[in-house]
Amino acid sequence: LVSVLSSAIIVYRLPWTWKCSKLLMKFIHAGLNTIAMILAIVSMVAVFEYHNASNIPNMYSLHSWIGLTAVIFYSLQLFLGFAVFLLPFAPVPLRAALMPIHVYSGLTIFATVIATALMGITEKLIFSLKNGAYSASPPEATFVNCLGLLLVIFGGLILWMASRPHWKRPPEENAKALRPTGGNPEGTEAESTMTDGSNADKSDLRISSEAARKQNLKLDEAGQRSTM
Amino acid sequence: LVSVLSSAIIVYRLPWTWKCSKLLMKFIHAGLNTIAMILAIVSMVAVFEYHNASNIPNMYSLHSWIGLTAVIFYSLQLFLGFAVFLLPFAPVPLRAALMPIHVYSGLTIFATVIATALMGITEKLIFSLKNGAYSASPPEATFVNCLGLLLVIFGGLILWMASRPHWKRPPEENAKALRPTGGNPEGTEAESTMTDGSNADKSDLRISSEAARKQNLKLDEAGQRSTM
Repeated sequence: LVSVLSSAIIVYRLPWTWKCSKLLMKFIHAGLNTIAMILAIVSMVAVFEYHNASNIPNMYSLHSWIGLTAVIFYSLQLFLGFAVFLLPFAPVPLRAALMPIHVYSGLTIFATVIATALMGITEKLIFSLKNGAYSASPPEATFVNCLGLLLVIFGGLILWMASRPHWKRPPEENAKALRPTGGNPEGTEAESTMTDGSNADKSDLRISSEAARKQNLKLDEAGQRSTM
Repeated sequence: LVSVLSSAIIVYRLPWTWKCSKLLMKFIHAGLNTIAMILAIVSMVAVFEYHNASNIPNMYSLHSWIGLTAVIFYSLQLFLGFAVFLLPFAPVPLRAALMPIHVYSGLTIFATVIATALMGITEKLIFSLKNGAYSASPPEATFVNCLGLLLVIFGGLILWMASRPHWKRPPEENAKALRPTGGNPEGTEAESTMTDGSNADKSDLRISSEAARKQNLKLDEAGQRSTM
């Protein structure tokens, strides 16, 4: 679950995905998050079934409270992300306004999931190694502690990758998509042989794509670039 | 501890501190972090003394491992912060390069401290409410669970405040400090009555302060403004 979540987070930060179209990247992001959601639901059902079968009460621990809160916010995040950023109906200003919230809540949910996992590990170790066996540090306790420590380091690395401004997908990609032929902005020989009308038309398009690029950069600086 | 840490984190984000000098803000930030460090050391010594007095082994749980890791990184963070950002020896490019790392590791240590607190709460509940009393959800368990949930919400709010670009201290403050009289940049009547020499001198200063402001803004955009 944590690894699928992390992959979903850093998909926008991997240089090889910069060559993908933005839509493909969004589909990968949404797809990985959907897989993570399914895994979360399956594991929650398994826990409830196990509790019911073993006559253990449900939802009494802090681990369960924070875990359920994270899953509820995660489903909200998925639903809103799908409605606003994947479906083509939301206007650009709304996307731009919601993007920082989407990023913040995604990363916060990720950190909360890691904290929940750490609490779950602590519970499991105490419940499994009974009568003070945990405090004697048997090899399995040391092993699982190392696992927990690695989980924290892993989470820290993912948050580092996700929060570096220079690991963002270069904004030029967007401008290229808007530019009709992908020609260079200084003008080419092919352009100068065109009729006046189409040339004017084209430079109009270029101006608007230039404006879009500038707007894009401006939004980028504020950390609010929309993913249209 | 968590509240002192949070205060240290958000001191740069409070509009009333924007009126303080930058140096005073840095002293408040460093002072609060030093208080938090002293609290962390006092509580760690208390835990070790309690363990030794009650014949409980030290450092066996995941809570203790991650907690000690956080404290070690926190002392490193304090030492480096003091050496680079508070003492006047480090050059500006070094400060600018280290600032994003300082911010990231500060916030990551804060999140790790909250995760450690949650693990500690889980341990304490299981150890104190013996023989399955925790799973019966007595009032004290519900109360402490609520406390843990509030801790997560509180941590989330602090991280939100710390990561909003528009809650950053306005960069103009810096330029004002560099500007000799704080006069407005369009020029005033008082200026026009001055002698040529002092006027030239002054506009020289204004140009350099303007350049400093631009440089400042540029670093700002990259999220790398140094705190000279």
